[in-house]
Amino acid sequence: MTDTDYMHIAIAEAKNGLGLTSPNPSVGAVIVKEGNILGKGWHRKAGKPHAEREAIANALKTHSPSELKGSTIYVTLEPCSTTGRTPACVEGIIDTGITRVVYGATDPNPIHSGKADKQLLGNGIEVLSGIEKEECEQLIKPFAKRISTGLPWVIAKTAMSLDGRITRPKGEGQWLTGELAREEVHRIRAEVDAIIVGGKTVRKDNPNLTIRGDAHRAEKKQPWRVVLTEHGKKSLSNDYKLFCDEHKERTIVYEDLTLIDTLKELAQLGCNSVLLECGGGLMRQFLEQELVDEVAVFLAPIFTGGSKFGFGLGDHLERSSFLRNPRVQTFGVDTLIRGDVRP
Amino acid sequence: MTDTDYMHIAIAEAKNGLGLTSPNPSVGAVIVKEGNILGKGWHRKAGKPHAEREAIANALKTHSPSELKGSTIYVTLEPCSTTGRTPACVEGIIDTGITRVVYGATDPNPIHSGKADKQLLGNGIEVLSGIEKEECEQLIKPFAKRISTGLPWVIAKTAMSLDGRITRPKGEGQWLTGELAREEVHRIRAEVDAIIVGGKTVRKDNPNLTIRGDAHRAEKKQPWRVVLTEHGKKSLSNDYKLFCDEHKERTIVYEDLTLIDTLKELAQLGCNSVLLECGGGLMRQFLEQELVDEVAVFLAPIFTGGSKFGFGLGDHLERSSFLRNPRVQTFGVDTLIRGDVRP
Repeated sequence: MTDTDYMHIAIAEAKNGLGLTSPNPSVGAVIVKEGNILGKGWHRKAGKPHAEREAIANALKTHSPSELKGSTIYVTLEPCSTTGRTPACVEGIIDTGITRVVYGATDPNPIHSGKADKQLLGNGIEVLSGIEKEECEQLIKPFAKRISTGLPWVIAKTAMSLDGRITRPKGEGQWLTGELAREEVHRIRAEVDAIIVGGKTVRKDNPNLTIRGDAHRAEKKQPWRVVLTEHGKKSLSNDYKLFCDEHKERTIVYEDLTLIDTLKELAQLGCNSVLLECGGGLMRQFLEQELVDEVAVFLAPIFTGGSKFGFGLGDHLERSSFLRNPRVQTFGVDTLIRGDVRP
Repeated sequence: MTDTDYMHIAIAEAKNGLGLTSPNPSVGAVIVKEGNILGKGWHRKAGKPHAEREAIANALKTHSPSELKGSTIYVTLEPCSTTGRTPACVEGIIDTGITRVVYGATDPNPIHSGKADKQLLGNGIEVLSGIEKEECEQLIKPFAKRISTGLPWVIAKTAMSLDGRITRPKGEGQWLTGELAREEVHRIRAEVDAIIVGGKTVRKDNPNLTIRGDAHRAEKKQPWRVVLTEHGKKSLSNDYKLFCDEHKERTIVYEDLTLIDTLKELAQLGCNSVLLECGGGLMRQFLEQELVDEVAVFLAPIFTGGSKFGFGLGDHLERSSFLRNPRVQTFGVDTLIRGDVRP
């Protein structure tokens, strides 16, 4: 097993926390000594121990403190060097007697970045950074976006017919995509901290925007359900599910707020990531204002016609937005094209 | 080797003729005796020998006529029983002393369908039909459509951005899709007998609609290039490539002809299949009039905005058109979703 192999174990650990840790990032760690894995762990929730502390605690369940001395810890993210809601992980590593630290991504917060190295090296601990950097950075993408820009990572999700429409002719079913694609939408919801829709969508579809099926986890807080309206809160009846179901305290209405200010507000609330599930008009505005970081377009193998497009009408964008490394997946007969918008 | 295995060899033979045989279908045949393949062949061109005759001739190159006696012939399509431009294959089979005929698809022409069985059985020849039926029918889809309806098989091809548009902002490149996707378009062109565009496309893009690159084969005739215009032939300058290049005699302009009459005309010209490469307005009309049999949508991972859609504006279709068994392929960063419209 190489450093890269162990880092993959740490990455798998981190993935357990995707969608659960905001405003913190998802981080995983594994402790190894002489080819044996002594313990592993992942950050479960803001305010709870960091991944390094989890891994140390996990190792101590089956090993004595002296057995941990001289071990290597693999962490997906640079260990924190300052005490926040929990004590600094660098201290924990030093106290445990770990003698080698291998990490993937650098702390995106410029104030902290690189500090860990100095402290660790000063304590005679060997440091290797940048192992599986790209994959480790992928895990903290939303966190890194918020930390570095004050805006959350924005995913634009829509389901369209092959002619780009989002509604079917009268008398046909409501859905364009099949069950498997709709299950995937719930998995995407499970990774975000807020879901944005327009007032129009609420009035038309009365959605509940919850996480259902296998994607639902007890530890996952209902994402904020954010309704943007220009017609005042009064335009939205309290009878809509968003305002009267069991998660009603997780619904926010913003009136007349610009899109960028909406996103800033959500970042302030600790949202690392936001999912747009709005109609074409709003979707188009987010695109135009270059506020979209990632796109997930579900394409149903159907032609519908109709006047409602996944991405609303209008002139050309100032410049085209490209997806970097688009991933294509099929869910039954439907196709998902997903990728990050090239910065 | 089973009957199915040998039929697959016949199918592979037939595929050599895709796009070359109109108004005839693509057919392949293989002759087998005691587990040995004696010969195989495919129909190369209307007026040339049918696949059965090709296979017999091929077998006779390396075997004596007496060696062919008692053999089995596998054909993708029911052998013809009437003399057309070439003598009936049933006679050839009987004359050769073949004693077993295995075929896939039934002759889609109701006048001929089933006749071969009777003649063959009457001559003491064993007949087995329907082996790999679906795959064999796939090979003759365009031919079957024309024979049974008087209309060609219509493939609607377009390349769109993920927001459904077909043009990019000013100052950017002309192409949405990459080179690999554009090569695939040439392979699709190589399988059809005519390509339809609107006058608008000619005026805007001045296309040549030829088959280039690896898709080009010496035996393939340039598909008809059909321009539909409501503004009279005078609206189209003779300087456009379609009217002055080496294939100019393969360009037809139809003025004020309905779409269905256009297709009927092309069927009369012997076209089994037609490719639509028109803009959104015309594409939408073909869809609305339910004249589209197959769809090939290339999706580029890009958002452009703009007012030109792959499938033009308008109300809902009377009913949605579904693709049966959509196939999803990627060409570089681009995605092709292709499938038959559910009848």
